[in-house]
Amino acid sequence: MTALHDLIARFARIGATDDGGVCRLAGTARDKEARDLFLHEIADRGLVPRIDAIGNLFGVAMLAPASTDVVMTGSHLDSQPTGGRYDGVFGVLAGILAVEAVRERCRANPGAARRNLAVVNWTNEEGARFQPSLTGSSVFAGALSLKDAYACSDAEGVTLGEALSAIGYCGTTPLEHNPVGYVELHVEQGDRLEQAAGDIAAVSGAWMTRKISVMFEGDYSHTGPMPMALRRDALRAAARAIEALYQEVASETAGAHASAARISVHPNSPNVVAGRVRVWFEIRHEAEAVVSAISDRFLKRIERESGEIGVGLSIAADERRAGTVLDPGGVALVLSAAADLGFKAMTFKTITGHDALAIQKSVPSSLIFVPSQGGLSHNPREFTAPAALDKGYAVLTEVLWRMVTAKA
Amino acid sequence: MTALHDLIARFARIGATDDGGVCRLAGTARDKEARDLFLHEIADRGLVPRIDAIGNLFGVAMLAPASTDVVMTGSHLDSQPTGGRYDGVFGVLAGILAVEAVRERCRANPGAARRNLAVVNWTNEEGARFQPSLTGSSVFAGALSLKDAYACSDAEGVTLGEALSAIGYCGTTPLEHNPVGYVELHVEQGDRLEQAAGDIAAVSGAWMTRKISVMFEGDYSHTGPMPMALRRDALRAAARAIEALYQEVASETAGAHASAARISVHPNSPNVVAGRVRVWFEIRHEAEAVVSAISDRFLKRIERESGEIGVGLSIAADERRAGTVLDPGGVALVLSAAADLGFKAMTFKTITGHDALAIQKSVPSSLIFVPSQGGLSHNPREFTAPAALDKGYAVLTEVLWRMVTAKA
Repeated sequence: MTALHDLIARFARIGATDDGGVCRLAGTARDKEARDLFLHEIADRGLVPRIDAIGNLFGVAMLAPASTDVVMTGSHLDSQPTGGRYDGVFGVLAGILAVEAVRERCRANPGAARRNLAVVNWTNEEGARFQPSLTGSSVFAGALSLKDAYACSDAEGVTLGEALSAIGYCGTTPLEHNPVGYVELHVEQGDRLEQAAGDIAAVSGAWMTRKISVMFEGDYSHTGPMPMALRRDALRAAARAIEALYQEVASETAGAHASAARISVHPNSPNVVAGRVRVWFEIRHEAEAVVSAISDRFLKRIERESGEIGVGLSIAADERRAGTVLDPGGVALVLSAAADLGFKAMTFKTITGHDALAIQKSVPSSLIFVPSQGGLSHNPREFTAPAALDKGYAVLTEVLWRMVTAKA
Repeated sequence: MTALHDLIARFARIGATDDGGVCRLAGTARDKEARDLFLHEIADRGLVPRIDAIGNLFGVAMLAPASTDVVMTGSHLDSQPTGGRYDGVFGVLAGILAVEAVRERCRANPGAARRNLAVVNWTNEEGARFQPSLTGSSVFAGALSLKDAYACSDAEGVTLGEALSAIGYCGTTPLEHNPVGYVELHVEQGDRLEQAAGDIAAVSGAWMTRKISVMFEGDYSHTGPMPMALRRDALRAAARAIEALYQEVASETAGAHASAARISVHPNSPNVVAGRVRVWFEIRHEAEAVVSAISDRFLKRIERESGEIGVGLSIAADERRAGTVLDPGGVALVLSAAADLGFKAMTFKTITGHDALAIQKSVPSSLIFVPSQGGLSHNPREFTAPAALDKGYAVLTEVLWRMVTAKA
């Protein structure tokens, strides 16, 4: 589908990195550039633009003017610093084309549309610059207050509210329709579809994720003369904890995933033993009991191992994202649409977070995956073949058509 | 000595931190403020100011106008981010007062002075913002080119040349006299004087230091779905290496010191397995053979341990600071001056780097220590009692007097 591939290529130029990836952190000039172009695409297609206070950007097709209901589709335009060309943006761009295609089909079938249809870009899905992630969709779903969302600050102390205001995306025109369903199309970012040679996954729900950020408190000293036995090196304690997390997960036979990917070291000078270090840890598994067991063992172990070298620790943040069950009706719909189109579809839970998981808290939501080559994501080499993207687009369009026209 | 304590208190207000320490990184507005005040103190005392191209700032007392020789004393006004109130600034301020005192004594003893005398503040001793450390003194000694010094850049890519130019301290008036000796007074930053209940150390030389910064190269991926066995986590490899360094040093019976105090993680986002991490390691010992043995074992071990998890490594920088022998005549002079003043003096090697070690490469240099409480340094709680500072000042003054008036 040339229009889709062309749009993806155009957006990939915004924040393009030398290694073929993109860097479009939320609230930056690059984010603004992508939003501006998306807004232009919305206007160009005669969709009605709406921008809410947290910067979620909608394009509404008034398919059924008598209805106050709207079906939504979309994803996010922001990326990780080492982002690929598909993560998020694929769902937004396939979404706007699918909205257009459904509108054409409605025009060819007068009276068929019973609901309106909107494409949406959610603010700060990635959580790279501002934590927590899924910010715009969580505010939309009522799970996060606008005030708390605005107050999230980046490493330099700039708040999300300030950043959005600076790029002109604290909107005043929220979506007026009543959302009755949401469908998100995304690249898998794992390798299960590829391993199973599947075309489409109807995602049934999400693993549980626990995000714990730990502050290690030692003491500052000169790296030279301070006797080794007297050092209270917070960076050493953090280093032990990072390795400990991997070991605790490896010793857990249930197959959990875990990571430590962000660290903040004070003062981070070559000649000062670090006195204060914060590390962001994540533990993921389908079963909450497994996440709890690993994190309990992990926290006990790092407290002991840090204590051995005179470093104390405290929990700076502890977020438990419960395992989500997505709308079962949506799963059935996606499977049936995919089957009707002749694609090989399967169902499994997602390990990654997605806006659909946040939206599910207030609106029945569906999540559709297409394969990712090698399961590689948050990496400039992220890749999905054009034909595989097209299958996702076709399923999305069919699902949206059925949702907009369904009698119930 | 009230004037000394008052001056220390005044300078401690420049870049004062909430916890009682100071943060005066080289080339910042705070550094400029300290330099400006020091320049004012120089002018106030009728000393002749000189500023060279790397920003070393001198105040010359013309004690023997017929002589082209100058004896120098001083240290540095810059600090670590978590600096104390004495490190560096003590030697500069005791120095300017000692220059003044020697000048008064020369006035009372006409014809006694055979050489001129200067106090100096060396640029970027700490190496916190710009590496390598000892920048100004190394350029002065001819061990580092001005071009290379200017090109050192901070974490944001600002060069030292740009930073000095921005604060107006790329000078055009280098010292015109011929330096024939240098004496630096400093707090010990270790606890050997305190342990021995000594007043003064005449430092005989320095330990060897090897500074190795290692780049760990893994691959970026999503922290969620990527199977644990396929992750190539550069932060995990770095964490293993930090712990490995401590273990290798502990297994070395000779008593070496080592640290890993600075880390740079890319992209440092909570949801991206780190693909590239750099860590700054240091290994210190009196004997070069010990440093070599530990670093060889360490590098082999981390290459193997990183390789096990798919992470490659390369040496980004490897600086070997040879063990230095300071001027033996200077050690004897300091010991004799201290003894004549009734102070308990001892001699040992320094573990920390100091400008005197750089200056020794071109000018006979001496280094005098006074005790540090608990050996604590690069810490806001760094402390030396006023009476202990006074003893250092008294020895410095006596040593400078003897150097300025000596016949040989």
